[in-house]
Amino acid sequence: MARLLRDVGEHAWIGRVVRRLAAAPAARRVAIGPGDDAAVIRPGRGALLLTTDALLEGVHFRAGWASPAMLGRRAFAINASDLAAMGGEPTFALLALEAPATLPAADLDALVTGFARAARDAGARLVGGNLARGPHLAITATLLGEARGPIVGRDGARAGDALYVTGTLGRTGLAVRRLRAGRRVPWPMPPLRLRAGRLLAPLAHAMIDVSDGLVQDAGHLCRASGAGAELLAACLPVAAACRRAFGGPAAALFAATAGEDYELLVALPPRAERALPRLRRRLGCRLTRVGRIVAGRPVVRLLDRAGRPLAAPRPGFDHFR
Amino acid sequence: MARLLRDVGEHAWIGRVVRRLAAAPAARRVAIGPGDDAAVIRPGRGALLLTTDALLEGVHFRAGWASPAMLGRRAFAINASDLAAMGGEPTFALLALEAPATLPAADLDALVTGFARAARDAGARLVGGNLARGPHLAITATLLGEARGPIVGRDGARAGDALYVTGTLGRTGLAVRRLRAGRRVPWPMPPLRLRAGRLLAPLAHAMIDVSDGLVQDAGHLCRASGAGAELLAACLPVAAACRRAFGGPAAALFAATAGEDYELLVALPPRAERALPRLRRRLGCRLTRVGRIVAGRPVVRLLDRAGRPLAAPRPGFDHFR
Repeated sequence: MARLLRDVGEHAWIGRVVRRLAAAPAARRVAIGPGDDAAVIRPGRGALLLTTDALLEGVHFRAGWASPAMLGRRAFAINASDLAAMGGEPTFALLALEAPATLPAADLDALVTGFARAARDAGARLVGGNLARGPHLAITATLLGEARGPIVGRDGARAGDALYVTGTLGRTGLAVRRLRAGRRVPWPMPPLRLRAGRLLAPLAHAMIDVSDGLVQDAGHLCRASGAGAELLAACLPVAAACRRAFGGPAAALFAATAGEDYELLVALPPRAERALPRLRRRLGCRLTRVGRIVAGRPVVRLLDRAGRPLAAPRPGFDHFR
Repeated sequence: MARLLRDVGEHAWIGRVVRRLAAAPAARRVAIGPGDDAAVIRPGRGALLLTTDALLEGVHFRAGWASPAMLGRRAFAINASDLAAMGGEPTFALLALEAPATLPAADLDALVTGFARAARDAGARLVGGNLARGPHLAITATLLGEARGPIVGRDGARAGDALYVTGTLGRTGLAVRRLRAGRRVPWPMPPLRLRAGRLLAPLAHAMIDVSDGLVQDAGHLCRASGAGAELLAACLPVAAACRRAFGGPAAALFAATAGEDYELLVALPPRAERALPRLRRRLGCRLTRVGRIVAGRPVVRLLDRAGRPLAAPRPGFDHFR
């Protein structure tokens, strides 16, 4: 029989995890790791980036979509994506968990190990966390990050900037739609564009990660920057699976609003565009021109080949609508 | 009619909160506050403390126990308590929320305002967060902190150290027991021992905050330090309400195991004890000698006046047992 959290107990489980994490090679900048009231780390000299994001059972995923280890990796990746979108890279992580008492303790072990390994792979350390009983599995992570170069926000885009997006769009959104319909398909992992974010940040006027749908996240960038945007449906790097599933314009519309891509949307001034050819090989992913920033109200228009606005049913994901 | 989160929407609600938080006077060390992919802050030169803790509806509290503003304040306080226990003070905060779509948006506004004010009162800033739909109200906060003086962990206690505890024990535990039984009594706020923690840290061999019950938290300190502890039931600073409710030894037993006190348990070497008379006035709270660290296995014994062990039914709170 699998031992459940209620068999092991909160404090015994935490003690076990702390011992396991402590067995990893010591990190130079971690003065006190997991297991005390707080972790103690040595920050770098530069600015510190802070972000928090949650992955919730019954909201973001359902039981069976991914192994516990992959859920841990994903919780790390969705947070790291926010750092990538500012040109930063993760350094330290905290992991707050809610779990039902009937969850096998080994599942939570695997989740934490997956998270800790993903952190390590990205050059970061899991240094603390929390565990509480809850009605569902809820994984809330906080990442600290640093930037080697300039930090870029959402608010610097200007009329005349070109809009680029990394990777492809729509693949994960399509998988999630199929998973919700009960089909057994893989749930793709977020791509983790840390390298691309770091290389693009010095050139970019603004950057954001595309987590809730390209149109909606472009809207956030536009509102912060006080400008509008035009996106060209025909130019979107629609994932092959998405093109096959929908065909033509419908695929672009889906890809532009489905969300869960965790790609980067970047506003580049013309001067920066000229530097792209030298940069492309090093990004580790595609980079596609998808539109431009225009003067005026912070409205995002998705245009067809003839320049006519396509009606998007909704711009992207909203937890409450 | 109160507007619910599903009427307002995630992004509109976040936009509103970000504008409200941005209206506060600028903080020198916050380069980018709430509203971007990540916050950007300037850390101090010294070590950085990191902690995360959650306050969950249906687990830590039930609807009606506290106003939304007080829930926000409490979420800040339980995290700040972990920093106090190491001699640190909060500098920056992140707030990750889960809420049902049927929650009035004004309730979540008040919660965030309560949290942000509590942070400001303690010298810290709320710089970012997350909002997701969830089955219950879940408030997960992350605090960064710094220490003006030495940082003290759980692991430095040695045989011969005296054990002291701040404030009184059992008041909140009693209130929670009554609230769970359906009685309408106030739910006391955590005492926030930042000042006491800062003043005691330079003297202490070890310190921990008492959140899950004195006996259990003393056990954590003992295991980390590799020593045992003896606590004297007759010496415990049992809250007056708790003495009235139980009387004598039963009150002490309840106070030693009830949890939710958020007081500090401190291991002080004899030399440090001699410095206490000068310090007491400045702590802002009582400081009571409750026992001592002894050599041997990491076991905590609660003793009566005759030195006989009192059987504690369970050492304190565990989420899963």
